Parts: sequence; C-alpha cells; structure tokens
Amino acid sequence: MKTYDVIIIGAGSAGLSAQKKISQQTNNYLVIDQSPLGTTCARVGCMPSKAFLQTAHDYHRRLIFGDLGILGEETLTVDLPRILSQVRSLRDHFVASILKNMESWRDKHFIEGQAHFIAKDTIQVNGRSYKAKTFLIATGSSPHIPEPWKKFSTFTLTTDNFFEQKTLPQRMAVLGLGPIGIELGQAMSRLGVSVHGFTKGHKIGNITDPQITSQAIQTLSQEFSLCWDTPQIQQTQSGELTLTTGNTSCVVDKVLLATGRKPNLDTLGLKNLEIEWNDQGSPRLDENSLKIHKAPIWLIGDANQRQPLLHEANDEGSFVGEQCLKKNPPPFKRRTPLSIVFTQPNMATVGKTHQQLQKENINFVTGSVSFQNQGRAQLSRENQGALSLYIDQKTGHFLGAEIFAPAGEHLAHLLAWSLDQNATVSELLSRPYYHPVLEEGIRTALKDARKKMHTEKV
Amino acid sequence: MKTYDVIIIGAGSAGLSAQKKISQQTNNYLVIDQSPLGTTCARVGCMPSKAFLQTAHDYHRRLIFGDLGILGEETLTVDLPRILSQVRSLRDHFVASILKNMESWRDKHFIEGQAHFIAKDTIQVNGRSYKAKTFLIATGSSPHIPEPWKKFSTFTLTTDNFFEQKTLPQRMAVLGLGPIGIELGQAMSRLGVSVHGFTKGHKIGNITDPQITSQAIQTLSQEFSLCWDTPQIQQTQSGELTLTTGNTSCVVDKVLLATGRKPNLDTLGLKNLEIEWNDQGSPRLDENSLKIHKAPIWLIGDANQRQPLLHEANDEGSFVGEQCLKKNPPPFKRRTPLSIVFTQPNMATVGKTHQQLQKENINFVTGSVSFQNQGRAQLSRENQGALSLYIDQKTGHFLGAEIFAPAGEHLAHLLAWSLDQNATVSELLSRPYYHPVLEEGIRTALKDARKKMHTEKV
Repeated sequence: MKTYDVIIIGAGSAGLSAQKKISQQTNNYLVIDQSPLGTTCARVGCMPSKAFLQTAHDYHRRLIFGDLGILGEETLTVDLPRILSQVRSLRDHFVASILKNMESWRDKHFIEGQAHFIAKDTIQVNGRSYKAKTFLIATGSSPHIPEPWKKFSTFTLTTDNFFEQKTLPQRMAVLGLGPIGIELGQAMSRLGVSVHGFTKGHKIGNITDPQITSQAIQTLSQEFSLCWDTPQIQQTQSGELTLTTGNTSCVVDKVLLATGRKPNLDTLGLKNLEIEWNDQGSPRLDENSLKIHKAPIWLIGDANQRQPLLHEANDEGSFVGEQCLKKNPPPFKRRTPLSIVFTQPNMATVGKTHQQLQKENINFVTGSVSFQNQGRAQLSRENQGALSLYIDQKTGHFLGAEIFAPAGEHLAHLLAWSLDQNATVSELLSRPYYHPVLEEGIRTALKDARKKMHTEKV
Repeated sequence: MKTYDVIIIGAGSAGLSAQKKISQQTNNYLVIDQSPLGTTCARVGCMPSKAFLQTAHDYHRRLIFGDLGILGEETLTVDLPRILSQVRSLRDHFVASILKNMESWRDKHFIEGQAHFIAKDTIQVNGRSYKAKTFLIATGSSPHIPEPWKKFSTFTLTTDNFFEQKTLPQRMAVLGLGPIGIELGQAMSRLGVSVHGFTKGHKIGNITDPQITSQAIQTLSQEFSLCWDTPQIQQTQSGELTLTTGNTSCVVDKVLLATGRKPNLDTLGLKNLEIEWNDQGSPRLDENSLKIHKAPIWLIGDANQRQPLLHEANDEGSFVGEQCLKKNPPPFKRRTPLSIVFTQPNMATVGKTHQQLQKENINFVTGSVSFQNQGRAQLSRENQGALSLYIDQKTGHFLGAEIFAPAGEHLAHLLAWSLDQNATVSELLSRPYYHPVLEEGIRTALKDARKKMHTEKV
C-alpha cells in the first residue's frame, strides 16, 4: 500500500490552510472530507451570520431617522424570506470562491468520504485503506444539542439549518447567550421576531467584566427578553412550546439552540488507537505542536477546542501544515487574543480578560469610558456602551480590554495591535487621536487608568 | 501698569488647551477673544459638519435596503430645515459644554474684545492697554474668499454661515474640493441637492496618491458632478449664477466657497512690531518652540497654518501652555501625521503621503487592496474604495498610507498607531486580524507589498 506524506481529514478552514502549506512541500498528500464542502465559516458561520446581522442593524437604524430629519421610516418593513434568501446567495458566493480555490488540486488529492482510523498510520475511507506518515485532523465542530431538547427536534434550529429557513416564526427562543446566541437573538428581534433569550448565569457574549456585562445586559434587554436560567420545556396542545423558568413562562414557535459546539471526533475511530485522553474526553495534545501524544496525528482548528475562531483555525492550519513534515519545528505561537461579537454595540475582548486577570492575581487598574456622552457617538447617534482597559498597576503596561461599544470591532483591533507591542498607558496616550472619532473614547479610558494608577493603592 | 505672566489671544481649541496648562502654573494670566466663543471645531467645523454628514450617509444607505430585504425605502424623504435645525441643536450642545468648561475662570481671566499689539509686550483691547511677559496668539482661521467672488456675496456661503441656513437651495456649486468641500459636497448631494463641484487640478480631499485619487474621483463622480477647473461666474437675469468652465456650464442658486482658510492675523497689529516675516507673509516661527523670532510671542493652532487640524491645535496649545513659562523647553514633537475626511468611503492619510515620499526620493513599494471584493465590505454592502500602504523597500518599515475605504477612519488610526511603533511589514502581518473584518483588507495590502519587495528592483 502506498504511504502518503500527509493525510488531512477535513477540508474546512484549518484543513485548507494546512493544505496550502503542505502542497508547497510535497505532492504526496490527500485531503478527505465527508462534505458538504465550503467551510463552517462560509457555509453556516461567520459569513451568513454577518449578512443576516447587517440587515437587522440597518433596519434597526430607522429608529433614529426621525431625529436626524429623515422622514417616512414608519413605512419601512422587512421581508424575512427575502432577507434569508439574500443571506443564502451571499453565502453561496463565498462558498463558491472556496470551492474554486480547491479546483487546482481537487482531482488529484481529494477524496469525499468519512475517515476512521484503524491504526495510528492507517485510515479507512469508503471501505478502502490509506496509509500516511502524518495525519492532520481538522474535522471542525457541530452545534451541541442539550439532552432535554433531543425529543423536541421539530422545534429546534441550530446554525446548521438556521440560514436554510424560508422564513422565521413570530416567536423564537434562543437557548444560550454566548456569541452566536446573542448575535442571532438581537438580529431576529431587530427584524421583528419576538425573542426570548435564556442562559444559565449572568454572562453574555464573550464579556467577563462585571461592569461591561451589566452595561450590555441593560442595553440589550431593552431590545429583547433575557432570562438567566435554563427553562423547563412543555409542548402545548396547539403545537407550540411553553418555556418556564421560576414563575414566568413564554410560548414560542421555535427554539434556536446556541449552547456551544462540540468537536467532530466521534466517528474518527480514535478510541481504537493507543493514545492518551484528557479529562474532557479529548486526545491529549502537546500545546507547542498541537500533536497528539504518542501518535503522528495533529489536531487543528475547531476540532481541538482550543480557540474556535476562524483566524485561530487558519493560524493552526498554516502552522501545522508548514511544520508537521519538519524535524524540529518551533513551538506554535498564538497571536494576541482578540474576540469580537457582532451585536450592536459590538462586544469584544482583547488580551487578558477581566476574569483571567483576576484568576492570575494580577495587580491591575481599570480605566473606563462610557460612550453615552462621547462626542462622536452622540453625533452618530450610537451613544451606548462602555469600554474597560486593564493596566498593570506597577509598570503601566496595557494588559487587556473588554468592550461593548460602537465600532467596537475597530477599537478592539486598535487595542489588540497595541498590546502586541507591549505598550504602556503613556505610550498609548502619545498616539494620534483624530477628532471627532470614537477612538477618543479610548483616550478617556486611558486617562482614567492613569489617574487610578496614582490614586489606588498597590 | 500690571504685567501679566501670559496673555492668550483667542479662546478657541488651541487657546483653551494652552489656558488649561497655564492655569496650573500661574493665576496671573488673561484670555482675550472677540467672540463668538465656542471654538471653530464646535461652532462651524468638525462637530456640525459631522452631524450634517451623518444624516446624509444614513439617508444614502437606503439605496441598498432593497437588496438587503428591507422594503419601502422609496417613501423615505429628507426634511432639510429639520436636518439643519438638528445640526444646530447638536452644535449648541457642544458649544454649551465648552462654555461651561470656561465658567470657573471666565470672570477673573477673560476679556471680550479685539486685541492688537502696540509693542512686543503690550496689547490694546477695547481701548485699554495690557502688558505681559508672554503672548500666545491662537486666533484661528477664517474661510478664504477668492477675489472674483467678493462681488457675488449674496450667492456665497462658507462654513461660517452654512449651518445657519434654514434650508438649502436645489442647485449648489462647491468651490474647492479639499476636505471641507468634498465632505459637504457629497453630503448635500446625498440629501437631494444638485451639486456641482469645482477645483483646479485633479486633486481631491486630502489624497495625493494618483491611484487612490482616481478611485475616489471615479466613485464620487457617480454621486455628483466634479469639474477640474475654476469656473467663470455670470449672474443671470433671473437672479441665478451661471458657472462656466471650457465649453460646459451650469446654473446654480448658491455657491459654497471651500477654497481654504486663512489665519486670523490681520487685525493683530503684528506689522507694528519689529519681527521677521516669511515668504507667505506670516511671522517667522521657530519650529521647535512655535515662538515668533525675536518676540515673546507664540503662534499656535490654525493661526500658524502648520496643521489646521483640531488634534494638532490642541497639542500645540498644550505644549506651548506647558512650556512657554519655562527656561529650557524641549522641542515640540508632533504626533504621527493622521488626517481624515469623512466622506463615504472615508479618505485618510497616515504618516508620509505618496507625494512626500516621492518628493523625498524615498525608495518604497506600494501594497494595495481594492475593497470591491473584500469579504466584509461585500457583506456590509460598502465594497468601494482602495487602500495603499507605502513600505520602505530595503528595511520593510511601514512609512505611510493613503486610504479611500469603508471605515477608513478606523483603518487610519490602526495604521497611524502602527507607524508610531516603527513597525515592519512582517510585524504588521503577525498582528491579529479577526474575521470577517475590513482590517483584513490591510493584510491583503501588506502581502501585496511583501511580494513587491521581493520582485521589484531596488
């Protein structure tokens, strides 16, 4: 049997990034994917969700038209079937571009099918065996379906089928208010769906800072109902669902399950191999190489549950694709942490979160700004939200930030790139701030931190 | 006669920034201003213009509503009197906040009146003389009225009275397509005014890069007519103006003059003093201190014609306010150059412009990106414009950028802050880029530059 240099299992973002690097080193490789092709990002993730959110945010903006002197907003309506269909056509455009990029190597190197390991150096696909020196598992992840919901499957949606809907019902519940739940919850609500959000504990999006969390909850709960518990489920006689927490309940037509994603590892036959497992039931990885201990198998992208973010998946794929054939690869170095949730205002975290800083017992001061009275935010009628910067109390170094602010995605990049350069408060204050811009809010927060560095006790 | 430590002439942004620093060092100071108070920025500049632009950009956005699945945009209209009145009420809000900040010292330190020098250490205001060891001139600038327009004053507007208009006529010409002309020209056109823009030579906004200029011209000329010459003016019998260039002409009701601003120095009596003058007829300044040669007089803000931008005026005011009483002040250090024009897409320059790099004979490569096919720009239906990055061909250091792009104001801050850290192409490529964001466009341009560094001959 022929032995391949590399077999990549999974043609998603991580797998394709790896393929690009591997194809520069060898022709003796295979990519296996059970389809549909096109990546989680383009098919059911980043791209369709952002297209959907865009319409929601644009439509919501009508509410300030009167103040601005634009008349007639009350006659604007949304056509949900058309919105979902334009989301799908944008999605198709992005998927097509990914498939086009695969064309040049697809015939020679791609096999459609489900792979499972029968030995550390052999997989089976469609009943045939393939041997390789190196395997890259990049099988991605799938929405997690909580146990109690399995019997209500006619009522439940996940991101796998959400964008396939021809329209949306009048009343929706969203289970889980992490990044996906809060984004789609707000968007559906802005598009006229009556939305009830449920999550366990007062945590929202990607935010850990109690002050920013409370700002976000206060702002978003003006748009749709947020409930901080897991509901009891009951089907009504008229074919709807009643969701009950404590002594309140609501009736909904469908439920979007957004309670996290689990890695797609179950069908890979990894249990057949003599490898080590961690407490979460995943293969034990070397963090420096992303390689499974005692096997020539790397685990990259969402499948390894490290950082289920597109840019991190690409980085892992590129790194492992570049290094897995080499003798003494350098350790994998992650970029400065950056996570963004595309609600309005945007949520974002940069560097160390508030939670991490507390856990690590780091001595920091928090510089804060509210955007309620920020000049540009007032001019553009987006004066909601707040931003917290964390500064090392002793050295003045910038450590991280949590953001719930207009143009938060841009402010987050600015701060993440600054963190990358190990900047201090005074260095950041010496940067140019144009006028009138939202970035001036960062300056206010920095000045607040500088004052606290001098007044708060170490 | 009492001798003051400092007299500041002008209570605009530069003067007020200086007052803040001076009041921390002495109580023996005066601020003179001939009124109206409230700063150019808040009264007739940054703030009202951005409020006006906001409505224009929001209204223009309706044109993509149909594509997004939002129905009814055709019934949206604008109420110009209401728009201008909301601009004024926002302006009043910002002016009030500036006046409020003056309250604590106004009674003791402020005199309303026009100041003129009768000696290097003495000015007269309202017929009374005031002596000081140090003078700060911060008298700002005013719109320049070109000679041929002086006899058509009933037809002309400048930013001094533009926002005072109760409404706007159907047909407007804009003379001068620098930052102010192009911003207000596009905004008026987006609000339904038929706009004819005139400027001498193919230069637009703050852009100097021929490629970006041509992108901007191509995009903006789809919205309103741009003409690259100075028009001949003729009043019609029916009381309108005919503007003619070459063999085309247009009829307009009013003209916005935006052909630059001149420093307010004429009434100061500087000609009475024995000081040196430069070729432009301005007092000769020491660039390190912003002090007039051979006189205890500093010239700051728009009045010195260095960088007529709000944040630079504030910096100059703070610096001179801090240092003018000291023996050996350090030299004034400007922040990294950053200029933004709030058209849509935004125009911006960062660091060295294309023109400066060419003038200084610097060996650079240009990394480019078009936003036409950029992922996020497509999703948010703002896929217009382009960005050029200039990279030192030998060292790979980032030197500057010119931008005509969606969220250009944010991309410009990101790049300006990066320039501040003397970053190279490879450092910038190692920064985090979330997905899908417009910042990924910068990455595309950086990769383009990196490729050209290797292929283009030094």
